Amino acid sequence: MQVQPDERVDQLQAAGVKIIQSKEVFAFSLDAVLLADFAVVKKHSRVVDLAAGNGAVGLFVAPRTDNQVTMVELQARLADMAKRSVALNGFTNVDVHQLDLKDTTSVVSKDSVDVVTCNPPYFKLDPGHVTNPNDHLALARHELTTTFKIVAQTASDLLKCQGKAFFVHRPDRLEELLQTLVEAKLAPKRIRFIHPKADREANMVLIEAVKAGKPDGIRILPPIVVYDADGQYSPEVFKALYGKEATRG
Amino acid sequence: MQVQPDERVDQLQAAGVKIIQSKEVFAFSLDAVLLADFAVVKKHSRVVDLAAGNGAVGLFVAPRTDNQVTMVELQARLADMAKRSVALNGFTNVDVHQLDLKDTTSVVSKDSVDVVTCNPPYFKLDPGHVTNPNDHLALARHELTTTFKIVAQTASDLLKCQGKAFFVHRPDRLEELLQTLVEAKLAPKRIRFIHPKADREANMVLIEAVKAGKPDGIRILPPIVVYDADGQYSPEVFKALYGKEATRG
Repeated sequence: MQVQPDERVDQLQAAGVKIIQSKEVFAFSLDAVLLADFAVVKKHSRVVDLAAGNGAVGLFVAPRTDNQVTMVELQARLADMAKRSVALNGFTNVDVHQLDLKDTTSVVSKDSVDVVTCNPPYFKLDPGHVTNPNDHLALARHELTTTFKIVAQTASDLLKCQGKAFFVHRPDRLEELLQTLVEAKLAPKRIRFIHPKADREANMVLIEAVKAGKPDGIRILPPIVVYDADGQYSPEVFKALYGKEATRG
Repeated sequence: MQVQPDERVDQLQAAGVKIIQSKEVFAFSLDAVLLADFAVVKKHSRVVDLAAGNGAVGLFVAPRTDNQVTMVELQARLADMAKRSVALNGFTNVDVHQLDLKDTTSVVSKDSVDVVTCNPPYFKLDPGHVTNPNDHLALARHELTTTFKIVAQTASDLLKCQGKAFFVHRPDRLEELLQTLVEAKLAPKRIRFIHPKADREANMVLIEAVKAGKPDGIRILPPIVVYDADGQYSPEVFKALYGKEATRG
């Protein structure tokens, strides 16, 4: 087990999981924590995490299932970090593949998965904007090598009928996201918006979609508010991070 | 001015507007108040309110503009109540038409309107369910005589380029609503979910859409929470109803 000079080991207390991070590539953030919290992973769920980055979401949900968790990440450096984090936690039910997510069915059978999670690149490519394709952060943030359409179709291919996909994304693309899911035969079912504060616009959205589900049953869950009026984590977010109630005083 | 035996005159204090109501047909509710509050009506805005019911939304926004407000309502009884409410308030800039909303361009020119508001029937027709077509409430609540597709297309036809449509609807149809708007060349821009309490799912959604607007710019505004934890109206909803801050004690 080697932790490289620019790396550190962080811990998500709520999941009791350690994760190798680096500022130079991509560190997990609240998005991954809240996505893992939102995803319904049952005792025997077969899970695939697409665009896994350094493995945060897959690592956070792995302890909840005795079935296999497969992570797929295109960037070699990040996939390597994820592999080492899996070893660091002693997880024997997690495999990591350095692979374009559109090729996931080369390592996982179609129609075989209960849960797909994905924290995909959020930003569309701006035709006028040149993004360095060797930039790790740009790849993780921009749709340079994949699109939400490919993500949704891949998730749909992998899932069993009635299997569930869980995404975190940006609400400014909401209409396109929902339509893309429907076109990939994933019916949006539960949506949760994440607001930095109670009186601020949402900056993230969590979406659950069911393969071959019926349309017209969208539930908008209570909003997640990240920070209280006094600038502290709200009780729900504190619990997602630390696994316990905050003690204030 | 005649108020019929089953009718009463209510007042929306926030707008300083009186409205003739009847339990036997359709009384305005919080939906209309919050839609009127959400709608951006400027000093010279030309406004059309579709599926106007007893005229609540149109009456609430009429004092904000010196331009014409046109209400369109299919049910004769409701259109008549709306007309009498207009007279009761002494509004000279409001006209009411008893008309199927799909025929609105017979009384208002295409591409001439700044703001369309609509609190449409929420529920799809259940093919297995027989609804009495003479039932005033059923007509107001179910898509017996119109659909959201017709509503969106009518709004789009009426609006000027960059004119705005404001809807209140049910969030369980969110994906269909957004796609229907896009198909009618109305780009969803601002969305606000209404939750009965902070920890409950949304039961209403407010949507602003811009004619010929660009896609991909959806803003999810802070949620409206109707009741505080102690069962009182939240300050924002209290203000929408009463036009002032609540005094608690």
